Amino acid sequence: MPEERNPRTELSELGEFGLIGHLTSGIVPLNASTIYGNGDDAAVIDNGSKRTLVSTDLLVESVHFDLSYTPLKHLGYKTAAVNFSDIAAMNGTPRQLLIGLSVSNRFSVEALDELYEGLRMACDRYHVDLVGGDTTAGVAGLMISGTVIGDADPGDITYRHTARENDLICVSGDLGGAYMGLLLLEREKQVFKANPEMQPDLDGYDYILERQLKPEPRLDIVKLLKEVGVRPTAMIDISDGLASEILHICDRSKVGCVLYEEKIPIDPSTAIMSVEFSISPITAAMNGGEDYELLFTVAMSDYEALKDLHEITIIGHVVAESAGTNLVSKDGVQIPIVAQGWNHMNQIAD
Amino acid sequence: MPEERNPRTELSELGEFGLIGHLTSGIVPLNASTIYGNGDDAAVIDNGSKRTLVSTDLLVESVHFDLSYTPLKHLGYKTAAVNFSDIAAMNGTPRQLLIGLSVSNRFSVEALDELYEGLRMACDRYHVDLVGGDTTAGVAGLMISGTVIGDADPGDITYRHTARENDLICVSGDLGGAYMGLLLLEREKQVFKANPEMQPDLDGYDYILERQLKPEPRLDIVKLLKEVGVRPTAMIDISDGLASEILHICDRSKVGCVLYEEKIPIDPSTAIMSVEFSISPITAAMNGGEDYELLFTVAMSDYEALKDLHEITIIGHVVAESAGTNLVSKDGVQIPIVAQGWNHMNQIAD
Repeated sequence: MPEERNPRTELSELGEFGLIGHLTSGIVPLNASTIYGNGDDAAVIDNGSKRTLVSTDLLVESVHFDLSYTPLKHLGYKTAAVNFSDIAAMNGTPRQLLIGLSVSNRFSVEALDELYEGLRMACDRYHVDLVGGDTTAGVAGLMISGTVIGDADPGDITYRHTARENDLICVSGDLGGAYMGLLLLEREKQVFKANPEMQPDLDGYDYILERQLKPEPRLDIVKLLKEVGVRPTAMIDISDGLASEILHICDRSKVGCVLYEEKIPIDPSTAIMSVEFSISPITAAMNGGEDYELLFTVAMSDYEALKDLHEITIIGHVVAESAGTNLVSKDGVQIPIVAQGWNHMNQIAD
Repeated sequence: MPEERNPRTELSELGEFGLIGHLTSGIVPLNASTIYGNGDDAAVIDNGSKRTLVSTDLLVESVHFDLSYTPLKHLGYKTAAVNFSDIAAMNGTPRQLLIGLSVSNRFSVEALDELYEGLRMACDRYHVDLVGGDTTAGVAGLMISGTVIGDADPGDITYRHTARENDLICVSGDLGGAYMGLLLLEREKQVFKANPEMQPDLDGYDYILERQLKPEPRLDIVKLLKEVGVRPTAMIDISDGLASEILHICDRSKVGCVLYEEKIPIDPSTAIMSVEFSISPITAAMNGGEDYELLFTVAMSDYEALKDLHEITIIGHVVAESAGTNLVSKDGVQIPIVAQGWNHMNQIAD
């Protein structure tokens, strides 16, 4: 077996981002139409007047989702939403979606119909066309690959590597809810396993459950920013937690940052739930992931245009790289930001 | 579990093509740029002067490849080649490739380096840019999703549904070799399992092994057809065997066909090997699959332009739908064409 020979470096030594960087290092574009390749939310392709944006994502059962508490319709919706979010993160508009399915015969046609109903709902809602895909047998469970194609005017595209010193750091919506929803679902699963007679008690938790099961791509924010005439200097979507994402922007842009704990938007129901789980709300917001909100930087001069927008919160600012990446806690202590996020590479087994 | 409720239709009842048709039926494009969606080798997107072509493919370990005899470098090359072939089948040029990997920790970084070396070799050879992807943990083995983006002039694109009565049916290269390579590799694997001391005896079988392990997309044919001024009326690449592919063209175009056994190009080494395996060479060509040659139809008036081209063989012609889809054997008997191909849906397990 080729993978057994020496030297052997474990995938977990590099982690997901290290691995993709390693595998794609040194690639030089051959086609004039290739504007930007690896290392952002989407690849950017020139086609004359517009830019084409393309991104691909994989969702693997038992790694990214648990079908014991994820309805297939929601999974379909989330698959589409996660893909559209990658285009939102480039400040573009999603147009087409391709889906690849690898399914074991544990699934029926009706089960896949549910999945596709969710995919179609999300496509309808965001005016995206489901244009193709591939369906194949799988040896274990369900795997979904999504590829989204979008477009943007050349001047509108926002990368990760273009944040500048003194820019303001903004986030849409609120953070940590999706993670709290996940913890709640995991808890009810354990209760159910211990006593199958028990019915899950999910009343009153609608908001965090929706955040986990049915995230929305923030294409409304892309539109809103255009309306108020603000073009972010850098942008990323929050799939792995605020900490991980701000570090991506800082690392790529060769800048540092200061975030203020008291500014980070957290919904009351997220905060209440985090107390139940003995987790601090800020930990959920920084490291929870899957909120699919947009994290972006803007020029200081855009402050007036943004300060009263309900859906956008200014949470910090960009500093010199030498100043590091820090969170200022509510009691004024400066804490270095560390990415915990989801490192799937540590969970894998064969 | 949602998939356990009634009614339950097994995936194998629909098969791969039936399933994707079922799941995507009734989808109506919402975006003006969506020219063509599901049901061909690639989706077609308008972007002004050119058309963008996009196609996605999944390769699953134990379903599409066996790592006990597939070097990872070859697997990488083949993954890219298979994707590029989908763009060739639309009469276009591949430009960008995105790769998604789901890997278990059985694999090392060095193993994935091998895979990427193969991907990069194919990209270099066909001037395609590897622009991105996703790498994630997998619970079982290796799964690769490939998404290729290409382009073509609007007038050059060839679909499957546009063959016309009296057109000539042509094929590039020769057929059945990839399947013979597969049978040979499977045989040597069994020999090795029975007696691990035995070394595989693969000398003299280079051609069919290359056909299986390192197929080439026929982008040279796309170029050649342009040079001689021939635009196919319909085209598809041969991934599942000639029988399955000609039936796709006939079904979509609402026509019938007559193919001539004596015209179907088969390499001598394929023929010799098929005798060893007690399979008729025509069966290997019709149902073997994975040759990645191009099958296309052209107007009768293009006969002169094609008749002396070494790499293209005219194997039959298009007839009325009511005349059916038939193969005329060497002794003049007309046999209805039946697709056997690879129906992965019959192989799946959980």
